[in-house]
Amino acid sequence: MPLNRRIVLASRPEGLPTEQNFGMEQASIPVAGPGQMLLKTRWLSLDPYMRARMSAAKSYTPPIEVGGLMVGGTIAEVVESNVPGFQAGDLVLSNSGWQEYAVAGPKSVHKLDTDGLPVTTALGVLGMPGLTAYVGLYDIGQPKAGETVVVSAAAGAVGSVVGQLAKLKGARAVGIAGGPEKCAFVVEELGFDACVDYKAENFKEALAAACPNGVDVYFDNVGGRVADAVFDLLNTFARVPLCGRIGNLNDTALPAGPDRTPALLSAILTRRLHVQGFIVSDHWHRNDAFLEEVGALVKSGQLRYREDVTEGLENAVPAFLGLLQGKNLGKALVKL
Amino acid sequence: MPLNRRIVLASRPEGLPTEQNFGMEQASIPVAGPGQMLLKTRWLSLDPYMRARMSAAKSYTPPIEVGGLMVGGTIAEVVESNVPGFQAGDLVLSNSGWQEYAVAGPKSVHKLDTDGLPVTTALGVLGMPGLTAYVGLYDIGQPKAGETVVVSAAAGAVGSVVGQLAKLKGARAVGIAGGPEKCAFVVEELGFDACVDYKAENFKEALAAACPNGVDVYFDNVGGRVADAVFDLLNTFARVPLCGRIGNLNDTALPAGPDRTPALLSAILTRRLHVQGFIVSDHWHRNDAFLEEVGALVKSGQLRYREDVTEGLENAVPAFLGLLQGKNLGKALVKL
Repeated sequence: MPLNRRIVLASRPEGLPTEQNFGMEQASIPVAGPGQMLLKTRWLSLDPYMRARMSAAKSYTPPIEVGGLMVGGTIAEVVESNVPGFQAGDLVLSNSGWQEYAVAGPKSVHKLDTDGLPVTTALGVLGMPGLTAYVGLYDIGQPKAGETVVVSAAAGAVGSVVGQLAKLKGARAVGIAGGPEKCAFVVEELGFDACVDYKAENFKEALAAACPNGVDVYFDNVGGRVADAVFDLLNTFARVPLCGRIGNLNDTALPAGPDRTPALLSAILTRRLHVQGFIVSDHWHRNDAFLEEVGALVKSGQLRYREDVTEGLENAVPAFLGLLQGKNLGKALVKL
Repeated sequence: MPLNRRIVLASRPEGLPTEQNFGMEQASIPVAGPGQMLLKTRWLSLDPYMRARMSAAKSYTPPIEVGGLMVGGTIAEVVESNVPGFQAGDLVLSNSGWQEYAVAGPKSVHKLDTDGLPVTTALGVLGMPGLTAYVGLYDIGQPKAGETVVVSAAAGAVGSVVGQLAKLKGARAVGIAGGPEKCAFVVEELGFDACVDYKAENFKEALAAACPNGVDVYFDNVGGRVADAVFDLLNTFARVPLCGRIGNLNDTALPAGPDRTPALLSAILTRRLHVQGFIVSDHWHRNDAFLEEVGALVKSGQLRYREDVTEGLENAVPAFLGLLQGKNLGKALVKL
């Protein structure tokens, strides 16, 4: 009799997580009650926010309990349905987490309709990461033609969309990514005007050279010293959508002094910066507009994306640890 | 023959300015050329931004040169006019700086029309400080009925307007000011719901107690540890118009570590804060709407103000030093 393999949080990480923070369990396959369906996971999305959920620290969502299932967006196949309108074989977008089977009601899933595009786009360029890019760039960043937009983690699922949308708005798109391979991808395949390697010794100088007119929008996915370097280049009236902080997520303590917060606040004041944190889940009302606009761009080939696929649930943990270290190129997915 | 007394920047201050950083000069009274008028200063406005102009540090306006005239908004009387439409005896709003006489063209002055209100309102509640409050609160803070608005320097020219406008919008207005006298004024005369003394030992606890539902808008006039205390109380989606930093203006170095910038940016992200610096001179297009709305409120007595008047240009320096130390209550003015 088949079992349901599940990956749980075995212990809370200190700093960068390790394999020891995760555990693989086998449980019996759950049974779909009335008004429910049994789902079999086909694709699991790996995203940086999961690292935050592993910590006990208060964040915008409650932490995963120790021993609890790792959370995650999924594409699943309906195996058994007690829900009118859903039948075995249907593919749905769900939040089944890191496991092979799940039971769900109709309100927690969406039937997949990717209109001829690969279903995995629903977890990436046309899913949560794409909407993140769209909302942060359009609603907070508001780039104008001729302005310079910088985005960190530019080869990732969010950053790659940000830069391409900025280009389509007539802005100069400058990416920041780790290593020459990613930078080449960002410029050659995604069409950014420039991409700067944050691991290079001359990072700050190269960034300044790539932004000869300063920076008008900085879409921050990473925080840390990368964000510091961009802040130095921000023009008067620049907008800074703060989206993520991969660069700080694994910090166990604040950095040594001096305390630069007065300098940061002073820069925000004198340069009249608009710094705003946002989380995509507050912006689902923008999803229809996003799907219409970006869906068309993906279909026409004007907006490109890459996926970084790992095979097998048993490899989800190393893939996730790689994501936290920037080893993926494009949207990180696990194929089950 | 009368001379023109002028106060100049004698040397750049290190930290809090002292009398030695200023010099009093006597010059001949300037002569109004064709298309110009000779102005005699009646009122000089003292404002915190002047401290920033005394430093060589790059800010949003160029520094005053050492030996140069201290800048400042003024109400002046036309003594002699070679400009059609202006005649001797007219009162104008001008930027004559810290001196008794000045020459100006018609484009750098406005004829005063305070519609029955004291002319000094044009430097305070219906002038630059009032517009600062209006723009920062309405356009960035956007308080809604039932929300909590906190403003620092609440007894000052800007803060006193912020809290009163917030009340009129149906928000809870909480002031922060220095000492029991100011706090009593803020609550009893201006009608704030509460005012917390930042000099009191239990400041943080008292602030939290005054904001039982957290803080939705923090209008920051001071920076420093006062701002730190309010940041801890900010609700999700709070707005923070950054207007001034009296609390940091005189710092000569960054505070000791740890470096709290990652914690600040993390708070902005996870609480989805909107932090925005602004400077009133970018917002003159709002002046008509401001004058119409706030002018009516002042006339009807719904919005109250206080002025802190010093007599004589020779006392402008001590009055300004007092302003930087929070010794004024209400709009600081020098009567010449």
